[in-house]
Amino acid sequence: MRTEIGDRFGVEFPLFAFSHCRDVVAAVTNAGGFGVLGAVAYSPEQLDRELSWIDRQVGGRPYGVDVLVPGQIDRAAGDPAARLLDHIPEVHRDFVSHLFAKYRVGKGKSFTLGSVGGHADEVGRRVTHSGATGLVDVALRHPIRLIASALGPPPAEMSDKARAAGVPLAALVGTVEHARRQVAAGAELIVAQGTEAGGHTGEVSTMVLVPQVVDAVAPVPVLAAGGVANGRQMAAALALGASGVWCGSVWLTTDEAETPSVVKRKMLAATSLDTVRSRSRTGKPARQLVSAWTTEWDEAPESPGPLPMPLQMLLAEGALARIGDAAENGEAGARELVNSFVGQVVGQLDQVKPCRQVVYEMVAEFSSALDRLGRITRS
Amino acid sequence: MRTEIGDRFGVEFPLFAFSHCRDVVAAVTNAGGFGVLGAVAYSPEQLDRELSWIDRQVGGRPYGVDVLVPGQIDRAAGDPAARLLDHIPEVHRDFVSHLFAKYRVGKGKSFTLGSVGGHADEVGRRVTHSGATGLVDVALRHPIRLIASALGPPPAEMSDKARAAGVPLAALVGTVEHARRQVAAGAELIVAQGTEAGGHTGEVSTMVLVPQVVDAVAPVPVLAAGGVANGRQMAAALALGASGVWCGSVWLTTDEAETPSVVKRKMLAATSLDTVRSRSRTGKPARQLVSAWTTEWDEAPESPGPLPMPLQMLLAEGALARIGDAAENGEAGARELVNSFVGQVVGQLDQVKPCRQVVYEMVAEFSSALDRLGRITRS
Repeated sequence: MRTEIGDRFGVEFPLFAFSHCRDVVAAVTNAGGFGVLGAVAYSPEQLDRELSWIDRQVGGRPYGVDVLVPGQIDRAAGDPAARLLDHIPEVHRDFVSHLFAKYRVGKGKSFTLGSVGGHADEVGRRVTHSGATGLVDVALRHPIRLIASALGPPPAEMSDKARAAGVPLAALVGTVEHARRQVAAGAELIVAQGTEAGGHTGEVSTMVLVPQVVDAVAPVPVLAAGGVANGRQMAAALALGASGVWCGSVWLTTDEAETPSVVKRKMLAATSLDTVRSRSRTGKPARQLVSAWTTEWDEAPESPGPLPMPLQMLLAEGALARIGDAAENGEAGARELVNSFVGQVVGQLDQVKPCRQVVYEMVAEFSSALDRLGRITRS
Repeated sequence: MRTEIGDRFGVEFPLFAFSHCRDVVAAVTNAGGFGVLGAVAYSPEQLDRELSWIDRQVGGRPYGVDVLVPGQIDRAAGDPAARLLDHIPEVHRDFVSHLFAKYRVGKGKSFTLGSVGGHADEVGRRVTHSGATGLVDVALRHPIRLIASALGPPPAEMSDKARAAGVPLAALVGTVEHARRQVAAGAELIVAQGTEAGGHTGEVSTMVLVPQVVDAVAPVPVLAAGGVANGRQMAAALALGASGVWCGSVWLTTDEAETPSVVKRKMLAATSLDTVRSRSRTGKPARQLVSAWTTEWDEAPESPGPLPMPLQMLLAEGALARIGDAAENGEAGARELVNSFVGQVVGQLDQVKPCRQVVYEMVAEFSSALDRLGRITRS
């Protein structure tokens, strides 16, 4: 299969796979796609280890990393002296304590913010310009072929380093305006992400967004993200004018994914109606499974509402880590609360498979969709 | 161009056009598509006249009608003796009066519910089972080739009459479950409508919904609706497995559309971020232009919230008719309030064109998208 994006990025298939899990990244790259590791899950030292592992697995085949660079975050995160946990108000801590009590997480043990983890300041600052640039510094010591940034334009320092290293910058966008801004800031690949996508996402659907972004940034190539988890959707993305696709959700139920088993089961059972775009996990709108966590934060009268990024992220990830453990231990209340970033395609995921099989099935269905379309024009 | 759906419905292109305007219906049918008239805008007598006009224009070429059959409506609408306007509470009338005063509609003349129009009871009952069946009775006296029903399964009486007349029933759905239910109730064509669509719409995007519906109802053919206003989107819909497309928004800015000029200008200026799914116009979630009308109903602390269908529809359409007139007269406040059902593709509409040109441009772009895709598989 010959595509422009394939030639440019050295891959067999125009299929990019975003994952926080190194095994997924390596498996997709080895199957002929392009794996992209979400770096924000790691400290610089951890990231270095993960990338070294990937390097050993992929034998020079192409892969990339993804960082989060929000345009706006809580001011405290920009102050190296600030202790971020001190900036989480009492009312927000109390609300999480209330949820722990109401859903009997840890069999009624009380929630304390200390249990978020000792490295909160480092974790919270991975999404600042300097934190994300630090992750990119580590990544550039590895043979990466792409740096992707989500949420906002990368800082000039990051772009300069990428350019100096000859590594193209990709940017995830949810509007035409942001796509233009990212290209002006040096992005060489745009990922146009529809509202149906998992994680941080805008309001415009993939079907509507992609052709507009393609026209706005031509000749810069565009990948379609959001709503792509099978080969027909891949063919649709290319019909819209995208040069390839960027998928995240579909890998979450693979053999290789480190998704907790209780979350995997929720995903396999979910329909496409079971996601919600909510600020309750990071402070910015992100699509995830509907759960008691999202419903309580978004609708309960006593909810204090989400904090700005990265404070909500610290509070939520700290709490959800404990909730996840309790859910794995079979606690019913914790199972109600537990959730995960995932797109509307979750309704299509009903079987655990190896990544390689997902890639090959997508490509086979893609190819047969193109054949089917070809018969229309030849008739 | 040869497609299964084209052969079955006697059209050159797999392109169905929904419109409340007879001129659009006739123009699309005459250009090789399939026009569908929204009957709910008309009394039985008016509908008869509109269809007779279409019959004279299309010379036997195929067209259809569309009715609204909500699963749940206000109980009063089912009681032939009830005066529907009496069921609109004081607090809702007062809120509209407040909006008229705040936005100085009619230069400050007060709003009275009487001005909704004398035929409120007849208008409100067009969306009941018996009202919609009455419209279908009229339509079946014309050579229609399709009856489409939106919102819920058609009553058995309507299905029986359609079947007896040999006219296939189509149903608009926003979930897989509803698609299955409609096929069980006798639908021979499913219109799977994504959240990005204008008017009454669900939460799942076209990209995600269409392949799932196609798989769930096979071999019943599926049209994709929502997010389709150009030929690349048409190609994407067919890539997803749809047999054709159903478009509504794209006709609103055509020469033939009776869209008020102030609304047409709003649409031409709007981006894809300028729509909202709101209950403020009919009582059920419907995508429309964001305007002061939607924002006040959905967000103002003094908003009483929408009434059930058809009461909200009567209140809103009555008020918006007056607001529209005032907006056409150049009143600034009325211009802020005025809106229209339209999908996210509104961001693509930037020029007024004849329907025929829209059809031909879509088909040309569709064909070139298929050619582009064909080059991938041949490489």
